[in-house]
Amino acid sequence: MFPDYNNHMSSSARISRRLTQVPASPIRKLVPFAVAAKKEGVHVYHLNIGDPDIKTPDVMLNVLRDWDKNPIGYDQSQGNPEFLEAMRTYYHGLGFTFIGTKNIQVTNGGSEAISMALFAVCNPGDEVLTFEPLYTNYNSYAVVNGVTLKGILTSSDTGFHLPTRDVIEKAVTDKTRAILICNPNNPTGTVYTAEEIRMLVDIAKEKGLFLLSDEVYREYTYDGRTHVSLFTFMQEIPDKAIVLDSMSKRYSLCGVRLGTLVTLNEEVLSGILAIAQGRLSSGLVDQAIAAKLTDVPDSYMREVHEEYTRRRDVLYDGLRSIPGVVIPKPEGAFYTIVGLPVADADDFCKWLLTDFRDNNETVMIAPAAGFYATAGRGKNEVRIAYVLNTAAITRCVALLKTALTEYGKRKA
Amino acid sequence: MFPDYNNHMSSSARISRRLTQVPASPIRKLVPFAVAAKKEGVHVYHLNIGDPDIKTPDVMLNVLRDWDKNPIGYDQSQGNPEFLEAMRTYYHGLGFTFIGTKNIQVTNGGSEAISMALFAVCNPGDEVLTFEPLYTNYNSYAVVNGVTLKGILTSSDTGFHLPTRDVIEKAVTDKTRAILICNPNNPTGTVYTAEEIRMLVDIAKEKGLFLLSDEVYREYTYDGRTHVSLFTFMQEIPDKAIVLDSMSKRYSLCGVRLGTLVTLNEEVLSGILAIAQGRLSSGLVDQAIAAKLTDVPDSYMREVHEEYTRRRDVLYDGLRSIPGVVIPKPEGAFYTIVGLPVADADDFCKWLLTDFRDNNETVMIAPAAGFYATAGRGKNEVRIAYVLNTAAITRCVALLKTALTEYGKRKA
Repeated sequence: MFPDYNNHMSSSARISRRLTQVPASPIRKLVPFAVAAKKEGVHVYHLNIGDPDIKTPDVMLNVLRDWDKNPIGYDQSQGNPEFLEAMRTYYHGLGFTFIGTKNIQVTNGGSEAISMALFAVCNPGDEVLTFEPLYTNYNSYAVVNGVTLKGILTSSDTGFHLPTRDVIEKAVTDKTRAILICNPNNPTGTVYTAEEIRMLVDIAKEKGLFLLSDEVYREYTYDGRTHVSLFTFMQEIPDKAIVLDSMSKRYSLCGVRLGTLVTLNEEVLSGILAIAQGRLSSGLVDQAIAAKLTDVPDSYMREVHEEYTRRRDVLYDGLRSIPGVVIPKPEGAFYTIVGLPVADADDFCKWLLTDFRDNNETVMIAPAAGFYATAGRGKNEVRIAYVLNTAAITRCVALLKTALTEYGKRKA
Repeated sequence: MFPDYNNHMSSSARISRRLTQVPASPIRKLVPFAVAAKKEGVHVYHLNIGDPDIKTPDVMLNVLRDWDKNPIGYDQSQGNPEFLEAMRTYYHGLGFTFIGTKNIQVTNGGSEAISMALFAVCNPGDEVLTFEPLYTNYNSYAVVNGVTLKGILTSSDTGFHLPTRDVIEKAVTDKTRAILICNPNNPTGTVYTAEEIRMLVDIAKEKGLFLLSDEVYREYTYDGRTHVSLFTFMQEIPDKAIVLDSMSKRYSLCGVRLGTLVTLNEEVLSGILAIAQGRLSSGLVDQAIAAKLTDVPDSYMREVHEEYTRRRDVLYDGLRSIPGVVIPKPEGAFYTIVGLPVADADDFCKWLLTDFRDNNETVMIAPAAGFYATAGRGKNEVRIAYVLNTAAITRCVALLKTALTEYGKRKA
């Protein structure tokens, strides 16, 4: 009855192969077990996700109280003019006075910035070099954009710093289009040195690659370290450098879905503006909130920085006192990849939620396997986000210590 | 110096081919000319974009005034629980009581719902059947997702209603995965009959295709017409039916970037949840606003409906009195595709902004060529959105009448 070529047309419509390839988030896939634990009345400390308890600046919250726009209509596709101007001022304040508002595309979170960048620089099947462990959602954006991520392994032995130029260049193939870094790094907490960024710029230049730098945690570097932004080298490789940014962590605005993609490459800007037009605009209210960033007092940023430094210290000192735990000292951001004395961190993280209770409390952390692009890596590692106050982190360290002992006995 | 396979690696990094294929929005590409006109002090009436001047319901705006959440953190990836519950209640109110919150994925506007749906049902290179003229941004989502849109032509002669089953079935190839409709239709204003939806369901069933129904304008049908939702047939083709929805037009919330994707197909839901996890969550504030939809009084929806009916009447009666203008009576939504006595509507629409002034006023409308997937179609057509009050629409009709006369003389 049907011609031969119709043999795919069963009575059942099938989802796409690629849909089955989008990985479930290692940060969120255990959420149902956390929900179940909470229903039992168990208190769950969330160190699994970078959703800080730090307060949003008052000057931003006041935008809501004083709201007078009606209706809440579309904004411009490139971004709200006031927000664009605020971002320009912010970048100028960092010393990058060559950035104009025309170089900035507002995005729905840093997420969309990364996704748009991958689309812009890769055709389907092209490769992007990155360094493992990596921000887990890069894996999602790669599948969504038909891009292959090639992860070059970094190790806790070297504080997850970059391998030598030789190692990176050897990984470049005829399909490689870009190098993608996260600096300061989520999930490792590594802050790349000026020499490392310089090296990547040189490789990009020599090999004709884009260099994408996700700098969402720019302000969070510790022990006197300076963040070396790709902006520093942007005028040297104007067609190749793309900076990806987000408001989420800087101003504790995770629920305000706003980021930026910044570049001097006009072809990239014009192409992504077309994508942005397709989805019309980012949120009007969210952009009005974020546009107040230039009014956030310096004291806010200073206090937040001091608070994260304290949290880092409490977590680091606590965890490294636990036998079998491997933790390099985090240099920036508010994450760390921790090696645990377990064979299967996935199982351990799930068990924390389903079985382990201490004084009716437990802790949620993210198994690290999903923070690698290469299957099989990171099996005994977890990512911990130090986004709770020091008292809570102290308690979490104690919980993990007890849990590791119990889990070890159980497996023995 | 470089091996042969490196010959693509020039010193200049190149943007992807696909980035160059994302079309500029016909709704927004003339914006720079509108901005320039406004700088000259010219008043520009915006009938180019479906960004209504209707007020957002007070009960939603009050959410901003009363905001007390701090920090503004991430929400759940599937969607804010209160918003999901409100949407469930809304769908139940329409009579579709088989919809549970588990069948709903919250999206960043209807835009993301459409984009996710195309990704979910198509592998790269697969085809989706749709009807031209079409919602222009479908073209963008198609390029972004590597999908080919095949547009089956509909005509003003038949009020842009669907062709016969035979014509549609002939367009199905071995690459066809889905049929995508917009009902009530943007840009034609057509409301499909129960027979038309029944026919599409039958085709989807027989050919094993997904049926995607964009029902953003569900409430806006005129002259006593009933909207026949795909929900009516969803239980008959549970694995194939996907409804795409948005808050933007229903509650005048275009700047609140929220939509939904609703289906009984659990594989689709689980796959798109993974995509949603990758981009973390929709906005917390926007979802809190939209969650109040169940508190919007019936009188609001009734008044808005009456207002759009009046606007439709004024526009329709006005335009059809202009010689050479072809306009079928819009049955729903708040758009209409209008044939003009010009050879190149692109040029005419641009000229309205750059040259035409009447009492220092002009009108912005969208050239319709970008509302077709097939190159060369719609050259003498424009899309008009009747989103301004009746006085403004009356003035716009007069402006268009004068402009067409002047433009005709200029070309003669």
